[in-house]
Amino acid sequence: MTAQRADARRNYARILAVAEEEVAAHGADASLEQIARTAGVGSATVRRHFPSRRALLEAVFGERIEKLCAYAEELAGTPDARAALLDWLRALTTYAASARGMADALLPDGVADPDHVNACSAKLTESADPLLRNAARAGAVAPGVTVADLVTLVTGIVLATEHHPDPAAEAHRLLDVTVAGVSPRFTR
Amino acid sequence: MTAQRADARRNYARILAVAEEEVAAHGADASLEQIARTAGVGSATVRRHFPSRRALLEAVFGERIEKLCAYAEELAGTPDARAALLDWLRALTTYAASARGMADALLPDGVADPDHVNACSAKLTESADPLLRNAARAGAVAPGVTVADLVTLVTGIVLATEHHPDPAAEAHRLLDVTVAGVSPRFTR
Repeated sequence: MTAQRADARRNYARILAVAEEEVAAHGADASLEQIARTAGVGSATVRRHFPSRRALLEAVFGERIEKLCAYAEELAGTPDARAALLDWLRALTTYAASARGMADALLPDGVADPDHVNACSAKLTESADPLLRNAARAGAVAPGVTVADLVTLVTGIVLATEHHPDPAAEAHRLLDVTVAGVSPRFTR
Repeated sequence: MTAQRADARRNYARILAVAEEEVAAHGADASLEQIARTAGVGSATVRRHFPSRRALLEAVFGERIEKLCAYAEELAGTPDARAALLDWLRALTTYAASARGMADALLPDGVADPDHVNACSAKLTESADPLLRNAARAGAVAPGVTVADLVTLVTGIVLATEHHPDPAAEAHRLLDVTVAGVSPRFTR
């Protein structure tokens, strides 16, 4: 029993390590079959540990998501509410732009699996919500905007700049445009 | 010779009609092999008419792009420069959100084919440039923003809202946020 559990744990670690490499190389469309082959296990074993592509992506990006959540908690204690929210959005942009497949992992699941909650997104949203509320209280954020909206906007920017020669720089530039507004005058 | 040309024209029309259906059903990843099979021609014939996936997408979305270009020309003559630019951005959002694969067709080609100019994007950019210049002259657009930036932002929004229960409504809502700015105060 214990030996079986240790085996399963080793399998999980090996599959996850291979998955990280495959997702880094091929993005969110990395082949589950290729991951199984490289890890030297059957497809069924991969599917037992990761019942869906989504579950695999969540495991691959789990550490980055944790760091972003921790950063949100850290920033929530700083005095400038607007700067705190923007710092966090910039960190999210940096992480998403530097890891192939992470933006896809933040997207909702869509028609294929509409009831499954996107755990990555949900964690980020929860941890950054105090930043948004502080900024809103300081009058520094457009009314009605949610953290989920901000995550969606950053995700879109990262997806649309993926093939730019300098994706991270371009994503940050377009984030600045989105924060300042394309045409903010007369609207408020 | 004439019969051959007529044949080629019929083949082209049939392949394009099938391609439109396949892209509507499967988005930009529609299978070229499936298109060849359904059109009853060989893969080589499809590739002769459409040497790349990009060329196929450009043909599929050509009519929509032409309409958006014509709309930009029409709007360029209207007196409110800001309203004209925003009307055009809303039309672009409506078109891109209602046609699977169109947002992908507007993305740059990336590493696979960096020298190929994205003809869809280039046409849109050219036709909407007078709208941007008019709006900039009226002081109604953030400095440094280009039409290409606006197309990229709309493309990102459409990609990130694709799986929303009401993609077009959600895309328009996030476009409004991007126009007004997430946090426009103190920045200008």
